[in-house]
Amino acid sequence: MSFAFLGGGSFGTAMANLAAKNGCDATLWVRDKRTVKSLHKTRINKKYLPNHKLDERLKFSHDLKTAVAGVDVIFVAVPSSAFREMLTNIKPFITHQAVVSLTKGMEKETFAMMSDIIQEVLPEVNFGVMSGPNLAVEIMDNMPTATVIASASEPLRKAVQTALHSAFFRVFASSDIKGVELGGALKNIYAIAMGMAAAYDVGENTKAMLLTRALAEMSRFGVAVGADPLTFLGLSGVGDLYATCSSVLSRNYRIGYMLGQGISLEHAIKKLGQTAEGVNTILQVHSRAKALGIYMPITHALHAVLYENKSALGVALNLMETGFRSDVEFVLPHDESNVRLSHEFSEVLKTSANAKPKDEIQSSDMP
Amino acid sequence: MSFAFLGGGSFGTAMANLAAKNGCDATLWVRDKRTVKSLHKTRINKKYLPNHKLDERLKFSHDLKTAVAGVDVIFVAVPSSAFREMLTNIKPFITHQAVVSLTKGMEKETFAMMSDIIQEVLPEVNFGVMSGPNLAVEIMDNMPTATVIASASEPLRKAVQTALHSAFFRVFASSDIKGVELGGALKNIYAIAMGMAAAYDVGENTKAMLLTRALAEMSRFGVAVGADPLTFLGLSGVGDLYATCSSVLSRNYRIGYMLGQGISLEHAIKKLGQTAEGVNTILQVHSRAKALGIYMPITHALHAVLYENKSALGVALNLMETGFRSDVEFVLPHDESNVRLSHEFSEVLKTSANAKPKDEIQSSDMP
Repeated sequence: MSFAFLGGGSFGTAMANLAAKNGCDATLWVRDKRTVKSLHKTRINKKYLPNHKLDERLKFSHDLKTAVAGVDVIFVAVPSSAFREMLTNIKPFITHQAVVSLTKGMEKETFAMMSDIIQEVLPEVNFGVMSGPNLAVEIMDNMPTATVIASASEPLRKAVQTALHSAFFRVFASSDIKGVELGGALKNIYAIAMGMAAAYDVGENTKAMLLTRALAEMSRFGVAVGADPLTFLGLSGVGDLYATCSSVLSRNYRIGYMLGQGISLEHAIKKLGQTAEGVNTILQVHSRAKALGIYMPITHALHAVLYENKSALGVALNLMETGFRSDVEFVLPHDESNVRLSHEFSEVLKTSANAKPKDEIQSSDMP
Repeated sequence: MSFAFLGGGSFGTAMANLAAKNGCDATLWVRDKRTVKSLHKTRINKKYLPNHKLDERLKFSHDLKTAVAGVDVIFVAVPSSAFREMLTNIKPFITHQAVVSLTKGMEKETFAMMSDIIQEVLPEVNFGVMSGPNLAVEIMDNMPTATVIASASEPLRKAVQTALHSAFFRVFASSDIKGVELGGALKNIYAIAMGMAAAYDVGENTKAMLLTRALAEMSRFGVAVGADPLTFLGLSGVGDLYATCSSVLSRNYRIGYMLGQGISLEHAIKKLGQTAEGVNTILQVHSRAKALGIYMPITHALHAVLYENKSALGVALNLMETGFRSDVEFVLPHDESNVRLSHEFSEVLKTSANAKPKDEIQSSDMP
């Protein structure tokens, strides 16, 4: 089988390299002609993977038609901001190829996920999305890694598994496209929250609570837009969230840390030299959640800190004060009514017990 | 309402203290008379929480009957090995009280969970279990913390939430008793795995994969014994797993680390000065999973390292070679059949695509 990989960033390059190593006919398309020349000469992606030699069999091209015409699957690995344009550009060359998104994130303003864009621009293609805790450098270093391919098409899932699977890279399958891509997009919100918490030097209890309640929000949001909550139990959900929240050097985490120190968003972005993906995601998810009536207290709290000038500490304490809720609402629905301690209540507790008074009191044999 | 807390370990003490701080009538029962004397005098649990003064209103007792007679809820916080005996000892004094287990783990040999023991010994009581990422010292330090109370009885869930909830301690509710207590018992297995991985200096990709595949095993096992897989998305599942796998000083993690360095189990236990909970849990879950036909590759791999003299590295590499599986099987069932790359297969891929050949080739406007 033959594959095209569009985009010369670190992840697209690493995936193209894996396919070539597996003996597939793999072509990496890069926009810039000079970059392709350099790749041909050195077999090194100088900008994104300067320390790794690419497989001898990997082909390179800057010509889109040459790259995609006649292949079985086109993998798209350009930034989310360039995704729509890229699909528009390959549209004339689409005959039978399937399209797989390797891009995480959501389109600015439209709130579209990559699968939405594929369906809008190429309504007739067979498609899928891939997402998971996948740092490209670690994949190039043969660190054991796993990812998820989500598609409604079983042959496409198997094609991707076959193309990329190796002794160090496992590809798991899912049919929940929405759930898988939401994991990769929403996690950036909670990396900011984790960075913020770190500024207060919180313990393991608090970090675990934050991770879990983040997951609760993600799955609530997912379900509201048609995903399966169980998907968030997988690699693209909690797997990617865990990896992202542990990456203390990530832009999202560092922005969060500065916000926790009382630095304004504007100053934090200036200090970092660039913005972080989660900053925009908070804005979009906050308004979407409000419109759809989804309970997302962490996202709303972050929105208050980033965009409403609230103090991070005050907002965090408020988060702890939200009544009696269920842990996983898909297991036990919420009952929002707070209960007062009262004599009456104590009576209810007794009545509901199955226990009947025991007549025969036995002697205690407590040692 | 009035509450008894049985067991003077760090967690039982912290919970009793929370209830007293909330103005409830709370008594901490401790087996040893001299310890109770010292508690009365100093209000400090010298052995387990030497740096924290307990609330003035917390009562202490070493007399079981005095402690439990007439209270609304009895919280049991003794080690799993003493749990059955403790229930037998309070049985004569049970009239109407509900019983809540604060104990994590499974009984040796019988494989009973604490809720099983409650139902065996006290078949008529109203009961629940509490579990979550809850280091007692962090709770005493007012670090924001959350936990789960699971019970079939809504009044009992609300009673526990009311008794323990504070600005720094949130109690979430669940109706899935089995799922909640399994999280607290099984996580110890994967803390050993995480320690072992750390000995190989693995990256974020590998850690995230391990955490996620651990969760997949836990939920598979849970479902086989009657739990809801979504419970593992909550505090007692992934929350506690995350906290445990991050605790590099925990006994399980340290045993795992030594095994990863090639030290035998016997020597590792000798070096640590004691065994770790997960060592026994692996033995029990391995045989139970085999008997029930549950796919638990990490547990089986650990069993091979601990009890079958296999090398940790070889076993880890084998783990990566287990065919094409689905990410979360409750979303997409497994198809165990591996697929060969073939011309035929490539044809299937094309056929299944909805794409139809396009006649009108548009000019590319790629910039």
